[in-house]
Amino acid sequence: MLPTFRSQRGHVTPLLLFLSSLHITSGGKLLVVPMDGSHWLSMQSVMKQLKENGHKIVTVAPEVNLHMKPSDDLYTLKTYPVPFTQEELEEHYQNTVNGIFEELPFLVKVVKVYKMLQTTSNMFFSTCTSLLFNEELMRYIEQSKFDALFIDPMMPCGQIVAEYLGIPSVFFLNGIPCGLDSEALQCPSPPSYVPRRLTTNTDHMTFAQRVKNLLMYMSEFFLCGFFYSPYSSLASQFLQKDMTVVELLSHGSLWLMKADFTFDYPKPLMPNVVAIGGINCAGKKSLTQEFEAIVNASGEHGIVVFSLGSMVSEIPMKKAMEIAAALGTIPQTVLWRYTGEVPSNLANNTRLVKWLPQNDLLAHPKARAFITHAGSHGIYEGICNAVPMVLMPLFGDQMDNAVRMESRGAGVTLNVLEMTSKDLSDALKAVIYDKTYKENIKRLSELHLDRPIHPLDLAVHWVEFVMKHKGAPHLRPAAHDLNWVQYHSIDVIAFLLAVVLIVLYISLECCLFCFRKCGWKKGRLNKKSKSKSQ
Amino acid sequence: MLPTFRSQRGHVTPLLLFLSSLHITSGGKLLVVPMDGSHWLSMQSVMKQLKENGHKIVTVAPEVNLHMKPSDDLYTLKTYPVPFTQEELEEHYQNTVNGIFEELPFLVKVVKVYKMLQTTSNMFFSTCTSLLFNEELMRYIEQSKFDALFIDPMMPCGQIVAEYLGIPSVFFLNGIPCGLDSEALQCPSPPSYVPRRLTTNTDHMTFAQRVKNLLMYMSEFFLCGFFYSPYSSLASQFLQKDMTVVELLSHGSLWLMKADFTFDYPKPLMPNVVAIGGINCAGKKSLTQEFEAIVNASGEHGIVVFSLGSMVSEIPMKKAMEIAAALGTIPQTVLWRYTGEVPSNLANNTRLVKWLPQNDLLAHPKARAFITHAGSHGIYEGICNAVPMVLMPLFGDQMDNAVRMESRGAGVTLNVLEMTSKDLSDALKAVIYDKTYKENIKRLSELHLDRPIHPLDLAVHWVEFVMKHKGAPHLRPAAHDLNWVQYHSIDVIAFLLAVVLIVLYISLECCLFCFRKCGWKKGRLNKKSKSKSQ
Repeated sequence: MLPTFRSQRGHVTPLLLFLSSLHITSGGKLLVVPMDGSHWLSMQSVMKQLKENGHKIVTVAPEVNLHMKPSDDLYTLKTYPVPFTQEELEEHYQNTVNGIFEELPFLVKVVKVYKMLQTTSNMFFSTCTSLLFNEELMRYIEQSKFDALFIDPMMPCGQIVAEYLGIPSVFFLNGIPCGLDSEALQCPSPPSYVPRRLTTNTDHMTFAQRVKNLLMYMSEFFLCGFFYSPYSSLASQFLQKDMTVVELLSHGSLWLMKADFTFDYPKPLMPNVVAIGGINCAGKKSLTQEFEAIVNASGEHGIVVFSLGSMVSEIPMKKAMEIAAALGTIPQTVLWRYTGEVPSNLANNTRLVKWLPQNDLLAHPKARAFITHAGSHGIYEGICNAVPMVLMPLFGDQMDNAVRMESRGAGVTLNVLEMTSKDLSDALKAVIYDKTYKENIKRLSELHLDRPIHPLDLAVHWVEFVMKHKGAPHLRPAAHDLNWVQYHSIDVIAFLLAVVLIVLYISLECCLFCFRKCGWKKGRLNKKSKSKSQ
Repeated sequence: MLPTFRSQRGHVTPLLLFLSSLHITSGGKLLVVPMDGSHWLSMQSVMKQLKENGHKIVTVAPEVNLHMKPSDDLYTLKTYPVPFTQEELEEHYQNTVNGIFEELPFLVKVVKVYKMLQTTSNMFFSTCTSLLFNEELMRYIEQSKFDALFIDPMMPCGQIVAEYLGIPSVFFLNGIPCGLDSEALQCPSPPSYVPRRLTTNTDHMTFAQRVKNLLMYMSEFFLCGFFYSPYSSLASQFLQKDMTVVELLSHGSLWLMKADFTFDYPKPLMPNVVAIGGINCAGKKSLTQEFEAIVNASGEHGIVVFSLGSMVSEIPMKKAMEIAAALGTIPQTVLWRYTGEVPSNLANNTRLVKWLPQNDLLAHPKARAFITHAGSHGIYEGICNAVPMVLMPLFGDQMDNAVRMESRGAGVTLNVLEMTSKDLSDALKAVIYDKTYKENIKRLSELHLDRPIHPLDLAVHWVEFVMKHKGAPHLRPAAHDLNWVQYHSIDVIAFLLAVVLIVLYISLECCLFCFRKCGWKKGRLNKKSKSKSQ
């Protein structure tokens, strides 16, 4: 993983250059400012490799969190107090999950979702202020002289720290809501073929879909304002200079984007974006004895893997019974990650487990289908292992993710609230027995895996690059130094139009002048000739 | 170089998949349609590696050419007759080179350059028709069942063949004049910060430079029409369907672009573009005894490498003497690739050679400076080996290339026609003794070489990818399926504006109606009250 040691064809690393870089390629210091949840889980694979390469890693996290636990062999965890308790946090997340399955009138649901999001947003924001105004921790960070920050920019807090310390940062992300990522990258993203989040559009849109896409594009500013605008004020206050969130994020040196064009639709990219989609498929292990036994016992029919993600491990009984009934209609053994009360109609082929090694199970040749909530991690594991999917999106961008897989013929999407037992049963039978689903996902998988370098190596390379070279300013487009009018050449077009108009006006005036002159002469001549004739 | 064998973390290639792909990864068939000149020289490094990987390569070239000679151990050469002779071709190129050094009034020069370009264009076009209408050769190509075409798309002929055969193609290019590459890729290229070719603008432009850039952008359509429009007619005629050059090129599956952001300015890229700038630095060898002796004899002062590219090996005597005088003012040994008459004032430190191993010499620790015509190959060799440059651009995009290096503080640009002996001497002394030039080029070199995979491996991977997967349609943006109005959402904006106007109109009419109604009632009431009071 040491770039300077790599066998670069014909390139012999000068000894001096190698020595000067040694402290970074083998002993750099990295500060990690992560986000809780599944985002954090895949960030760790990069940290693990960086640690193996000899770097020192410090992670800062709120005392109250879901997944960010101390891990002495991987990183030093520095926690800071926040103004809410572990119980409040867990209760909020459980309420959010329960809310998904509540069947309420549309407007009531919208208000409820809005309130949930507001609470989440308030929790994130108070976490951020708790970090920034924790003098002791900030002093420690400042004194530690980190080479770079490794940040999940979904919450722009990490970048405020980077900005404050004046050190470069690497982002690790799926994307940022409301197209803030494209905006901060100055990356063109034409709404005519780049579907906006939450529209469930594909890249091939009808006229009506393009109208919806443009309306979403225009309304994002207001939709996300309530979440991101407080960070603009916070950053401006903390850094003592005016700073919007877009400007703040635009200072990220390198963006490790969990994108891949077997999953995402092709669109423009900027030079400081590195696509590392499928990074979470790395680190495959063999199954434990317990799971190996279950899989082997499934016989020729094989297995179906069923998980609704790290956040949702139990669902209301009514829905669970509907699902259990459907699962009983197929001959495959179903491994269902589920921690709730056991549905009374659970069939013999269904095994409830509190946790399952999802990627390892999907990699098994006996995996026939994957029932997933369509989180990007799960989908990539489905693609890596060429397992067709039944997609049950729950919230956020999962609906968009599901549509992408369905539009590529690699899965069937169901509305988890509206679906019946039969719908699920039909969908499962389709993806298992209709060969086109398997063929499509196999083709996607072959395209995805045929890459010159593994996304994990790519991610580690670019983090080390930023640490070693103190950023990557040569990848930053000059567009950042232009305002909106300049970027769109509106001033230049106005100037050229003015020139054209002035030239036209002067030409016209000249013509008129000549015309008048001639007309006047002619008039005079006419007069003269008339007076003569008289 | 076999992608399926690569140690992809945690990915075990299924045996069946591996076997089915075996005929491509070790025995595919590739048809190469190159361009003559330096373009062809760097294309061969990729072909060499592909040959080593077990692929069969056939190259088609005109019988009359400069560099494309048979090479049985690398490819099978199939030639076709063209309606001009070797003497005519060589004479035309010599005239072109001589034309550069002629000091003529501006307008006379413009006319002369235009005529030269027209002759070049005619030669290219007749070469293309000679290939397409050579029935025997086209039958051979058709029957050979190639997996893919490897094309230099500067001349769109290769893509007409690909289109005719219905097989995918990989492009290998620096760029295509007039921004045809961006257009065919549907890649946004805002003229506010992406400098157009031949403007000598950088990515940071003043208002006047942005005006110049936009004017160039708008005039490219006319500037290049005379060169490319005949190919639209030819393609339409040959393929029996309407086809513009932009549409033709847009069907290229993958674009191997000789770009790197230590040389190019950062700008948007499309997913089917792979940057392989610096690919020509590969394959470095040790110096021959003859050159090793010269370099060693240079002592502590070291050497200066001087070449004006593969096309220009002799220059008018007056200019040669000016240059010779300047070279005599520095203590370094100068190795000058020059085949003309020896200047009488040639100093002892200057060695004239008919050919020099440019990259190997620049790689030597004693290399102090590089005098170059600013062709992209030479510049990349300067960057790879961290040698500061004196740039003497001669034609085409060389002026732009020189400006890029100068704007990064890695070289000094001279106007070869206007420069004096002192100018060259001063420039040489500056890049050799002013440490900032060395520091800047060293930094660029470090950034350029710190990459996760060598550009040659990347190029070979993607050619094999296209051969194996029969193209890369998952990387083709949906923008290609939209027309100009749709792409810019003009129809959607017009529709939304119409809706807004109609709503406003109806609201206004309603208000007026209510107003009239109220006004009328009020009027009537007033009338009534008046009549009552009367």
